[in-house]
Amino acid sequence: MKTAQLLNYARDQWIAGDSAALADINSAIDGSLVAKTGSGGLDFAAMLHHARNVGGPALRRLTFHERARIIKGLGLAILERKEELYELNYLTGATRKDGWIDIEGGAGTLLSFSSKGRRELPDAHVLLDGALEPLSKSGSFIGQHIYTPLQGAAVHINAFNFPVWGMLEKLAPTLLAGMPAIVKPASSTAYLCEAAFRVMIDSGLLPDGAVQLIVGGVGDLFDHLTGQDVVSFTGSAATALKLRSHPVVQRESVKFVAEQDSLNASLLGPDAGPGTPEFDLFVKEVVNEMTVKAGQKCTAIRRAMAPAEHLDAVEAAIRERLQATKVGDPRDRESRMGALVSCAQRDDVRAQIAKLTAAGARIVSGDPDASPGVAGGAFLEPILLRTDDPWHASAVHDVEAFGPVSTVMPYKHIADAVALANRGMGSLALSLFTYSPGAAREFIQGAAAYHGRMLVLNRDNAAESTGHGSPLPVLVHGGPGRAGGSEEMGGVRGVKHYMQRTAIQSTPAMIAAISEQYIPGGPKHVIEQHPFRRRMSELQIGDTLKTPSRTVTLEDIEHFAHFTGDTFYAHMDDEAAKASPIFEGRVAHGYLILSFAAGLFVDPDPGPVLANTGLENLRFLTPLYPGDSMRVELTVRAKSLKSEDTGVVRWAVEVFNQKDELIATYDLLTENVP
Amino acid sequence: MKTAQLLNYARDQWIAGDSAALADINSAIDGSLVAKTGSGGLDFAAMLHHARNVGGPALRRLTFHERARIIKGLGLAILERKEELYELNYLTGATRKDGWIDIEGGAGTLLSFSSKGRRELPDAHVLLDGALEPLSKSGSFIGQHIYTPLQGAAVHINAFNFPVWGMLEKLAPTLLAGMPAIVKPASSTAYLCEAAFRVMIDSGLLPDGAVQLIVGGVGDLFDHLTGQDVVSFTGSAATALKLRSHPVVQRESVKFVAEQDSLNASLLGPDAGPGTPEFDLFVKEVVNEMTVKAGQKCTAIRRAMAPAEHLDAVEAAIRERLQATKVGDPRDRESRMGALVSCAQRDDVRAQIAKLTAAGARIVSGDPDASPGVAGGAFLEPILLRTDDPWHASAVHDVEAFGPVSTVMPYKHIADAVALANRGMGSLALSLFTYSPGAAREFIQGAAAYHGRMLVLNRDNAAESTGHGSPLPVLVHGGPGRAGGSEEMGGVRGVKHYMQRTAIQSTPAMIAAISEQYIPGGPKHVIEQHPFRRRMSELQIGDTLKTPSRTVTLEDIEHFAHFTGDTFYAHMDDEAAKASPIFEGRVAHGYLILSFAAGLFVDPDPGPVLANTGLENLRFLTPLYPGDSMRVELTVRAKSLKSEDTGVVRWAVEVFNQKDELIATYDLLTENVP
Repeated sequence: MKTAQLLNYARDQWIAGDSAALADINSAIDGSLVAKTGSGGLDFAAMLHHARNVGGPALRRLTFHERARIIKGLGLAILERKEELYELNYLTGATRKDGWIDIEGGAGTLLSFSSKGRRELPDAHVLLDGALEPLSKSGSFIGQHIYTPLQGAAVHINAFNFPVWGMLEKLAPTLLAGMPAIVKPASSTAYLCEAAFRVMIDSGLLPDGAVQLIVGGVGDLFDHLTGQDVVSFTGSAATALKLRSHPVVQRESVKFVAEQDSLNASLLGPDAGPGTPEFDLFVKEVVNEMTVKAGQKCTAIRRAMAPAEHLDAVEAAIRERLQATKVGDPRDRESRMGALVSCAQRDDVRAQIAKLTAAGARIVSGDPDASPGVAGGAFLEPILLRTDDPWHASAVHDVEAFGPVSTVMPYKHIADAVALANRGMGSLALSLFTYSPGAAREFIQGAAAYHGRMLVLNRDNAAESTGHGSPLPVLVHGGPGRAGGSEEMGGVRGVKHYMQRTAIQSTPAMIAAISEQYIPGGPKHVIEQHPFRRRMSELQIGDTLKTPSRTVTLEDIEHFAHFTGDTFYAHMDDEAAKASPIFEGRVAHGYLILSFAAGLFVDPDPGPVLANTGLENLRFLTPLYPGDSMRVELTVRAKSLKSEDTGVVRWAVEVFNQKDELIATYDLLTENVP
Repeated sequence: MKTAQLLNYARDQWIAGDSAALADINSAIDGSLVAKTGSGGLDFAAMLHHARNVGGPALRRLTFHERARIIKGLGLAILERKEELYELNYLTGATRKDGWIDIEGGAGTLLSFSSKGRRELPDAHVLLDGALEPLSKSGSFIGQHIYTPLQGAAVHINAFNFPVWGMLEKLAPTLLAGMPAIVKPASSTAYLCEAAFRVMIDSGLLPDGAVQLIVGGVGDLFDHLTGQDVVSFTGSAATALKLRSHPVVQRESVKFVAEQDSLNASLLGPDAGPGTPEFDLFVKEVVNEMTVKAGQKCTAIRRAMAPAEHLDAVEAAIRERLQATKVGDPRDRESRMGALVSCAQRDDVRAQIAKLTAAGARIVSGDPDASPGVAGGAFLEPILLRTDDPWHASAVHDVEAFGPVSTVMPYKHIADAVALANRGMGSLALSLFTYSPGAAREFIQGAAAYHGRMLVLNRDNAAESTGHGSPLPVLVHGGPGRAGGSEEMGGVRGVKHYMQRTAIQSTPAMIAAISEQYIPGGPKHVIEQHPFRRRMSELQIGDTLKTPSRTVTLEDIEHFAHFTGDTFYAHMDDEAAKASPIFEGRVAHGYLILSFAAGLFVDPDPGPVLANTGLENLRFLTPLYPGDSMRVELTVRAKSLKSEDTGVVRWAVEVFNQKDELIATYDLLTENVP
């Protein structure tokens, strides 16, 4: 699949940019022309309008679960056509292994968000945030935070290094939130992004207006942004600064998410000298991070720190591995490292290396002027630098060579290591190789404020580790300061960046209506048929079973105590119970109340409720004394999915005594037939 | 207490600004001189350095609970000396009732954060965020998000209207997070802020460097900010734009929180015509919001919307109430509304009113040129405007007169009301007066993305409502777009703005060490003495009781079923249980497992454990079949306080079968003697 000219996708049409203003994209392998690209002639204001007025409303009509199913379908569509994408991937200079991170890692991110969406979000349009806040004595006035989708467009400006994953890790939370997106890939690898985007359009799963694509400049798009839009940028600090300083972004308080390349560090712990498993793991990881994707990763290790007494050994071990790394044509199976994305990028990396050496770091492995691999391609040997004075050679904490380049440096003790790591002024990822919990605690507590993700690796978890450089969909990706001061992904956390949190104050009835969820104190719908006889799809939020009541006798309490062995004095000894600050005499066991409650609400025959799988937020509110009676109201609170054929129903359980006082409340989880 | 010259508090010293560059502050009541103020000569870089290197480390050495106790002490100190502050409050033009919001509301905010801090945060240095994320099959590699305090300084730039509350609502979450603050009040009411600040310093509760005060310009302070600092600003959009656009804020990704005045709306629901309780509540609230604090509230109602057919009635009812509102000297008990903060502010409000009338709104109550009250004071009559064409008179959605000014306008149906409300392009607060759940749902779902806090008020909650304009410490305060795109307060949510979230990946043992909390799979410390015999202060995180095991027989299951009434088929009918997709035969009840678990771990005699008050995150992981045995490991997971003399211990309960498979896990909550 060769595209002579890449196409934009605007207002649900594939549109070619003005032919008079196209840019060439060349192969990283040999410099040959791959495609022409441009976005001249697009009406950017109309694209925003289309996203806001067609895509947004269509997505907002869907529930979180419906959107999650679309996202799963997109991931599967990418996987089905991955070989087309791998072919294009080579042209970016990347090996197949590099491409796996981008292509299958991207599809996996869609699948992960789809799964999180169905497990952790309701099958509704509104997401509740946190617990109800009681704001008044009688409970008529309460507070509840909710999230609703922003009503603008998400503008995604992606980096060249992961044209597929970079697009999908932003699209997944955006679409799950219910927001339409306009995707703008980096030009140098836009052909791969365009191909993956085309797979999604071809799938037919997305509503009109949900996604658009700009394969060129964004023209006057920023002039039309509002506070309901989000800009999510990945790339260099310089471009981020230019975009975030745009007067409209500033004036309208446009949400601006930035993931910027940072000077990520990796540390060999003070306990991890040569001969320890951690020493070998550290050396392997530094080399891996230098050479995967030819070091063109925003999370790559740029600063490798070791105890001063082990620095020579570290340098020697890294050099030995680097020199065994074959650089060459990424299509060649022997190649361990491919090319940089372009010769211009290689020029830039060489210029940054020169800054580092000018600042006092010296090259201890690799020749930056060598041109290995294919003629005309953007190949570079991996370059290891060293400084013995990282306090004065401050460029090693500031100057980023975005390629296969790293600097080793010494530290004296943990406080020194913390200060050096933090000299990067904010990073996306840091790793520490240690087997000492004390060292890990001192280091991480001292440095966590400066880093978005931190790995502590050692002999116990190395085999299962996903490595220093891999952002994961369930963990936040981003970092403070130089790293951009933002977050992406992190499961549902990432979805919230595309939603607005609003504090709602009202009665339980109104909050239940607004949130489409059962709220304690809100309306219930008492049903005739036992709810255990209904499939999950037949149960409505608010459906309620009211049970008969049952008296709890002293005999019951005595019996339960001796049967279970729980002879706590509050149940057994009237005098001692009265002497406690809580009880007026012997009380029923909490577990007896739970057990009797189940006895009251359980419908015994086989049916769509398969099992009680859990219980949450149980609070015992009023003691139940011998002679009191109890009854239960069981209400459908929320429904979610564990897998395609397993549903989870969350029931609000309220246990009342004969005075209609609440004696216990909890959420019961059951596994159900959907 | 009269201060000739206000003092700055820098590096733990009271310091006078250069006498050559002082500004006058005049009384709002009569224009007389109240104080002189200035910050000339301060070394702002040194103040930041002091906060970061003295205040920050001192605060970070404390746990959340220790910081919460300091915050409570500060709140009590303010309450103890509130009369001094009320005296100064009058000079700002505010009545005693206005001052109550500022002074006692401010102290109450400190108390609320202190309480939240001890109930919802651990007695530790690290806050866990969300659940453990399993990242590998065997569980050796897991993820956990944590929050740690930012290591810079929080710069608080406050508005003139709430000099005490405005300072304290920012200080409470900042100090609770463990971050030092530099407070810069607005000049026109700086004397009241300085007095309240002095009460806190006099209390002796704060460590050195925790707080500093600048009673004047901030000089070159912004030039020295980094990505570890936070700027939190309250005031006008114009000033916010200037500060957030500062090149250092942009370049360093400095966290910038802005609460900007916004065009807040209040709506009369379509169901709420004259004669309904909601109509009367609406009229009362609009008038209240116009006149409290002379309308100088960032949350005040600027746009009052009503169904077109009720607009005349609304206008008449509001006018009637306004005309009965006595404007005058705030020290006079008869006065219902005091003065604006200054004559300059009154000039500004008059200019904004002129813009509104020029755009087509007409004044229907009040005379903006009148000067009621005391001669030389900044008094103004409340001004009600009306437009019948809010779609064309767009100034009513854009122009804010920060005084006793509001505009009434019609809407046609709910979709129209949503669009009009959202024309404000982002607000802090909105209220809706309706008794219709359907109307509330349609309106709130349509408009929530544009508003930070929304009240739905009606006959059921009006008596307990805290009103349209009152931010509450437990709810977020802030809004998108024009309102600044930020959040403050909201309980623990607000604390997190002063912390960095970091994803930690490692083994359970390492994450337990880093987070100072028990992590499932992490190390346990098996103790000899039964943990129920220890006071909370004597229990250590990780202390574990291992119980003997007990066999569960078919007889036990039968007995429990008939005793409780829970005869669910999975426990009673071997064939039916086998036919389910989950079980291999009859299984023990979940509640039987819980009850027997308690029988195994409970120590019966009276002691420091007073009661089992709740249970969370229960999951049944493996079925327990007749003949299996079970044993429990009970581990101290976290400790917090419910009140001064009531502790809450959270225990991790793990129930194992004879094959050491986990059959159930949960968190048990007990009420303990601290």
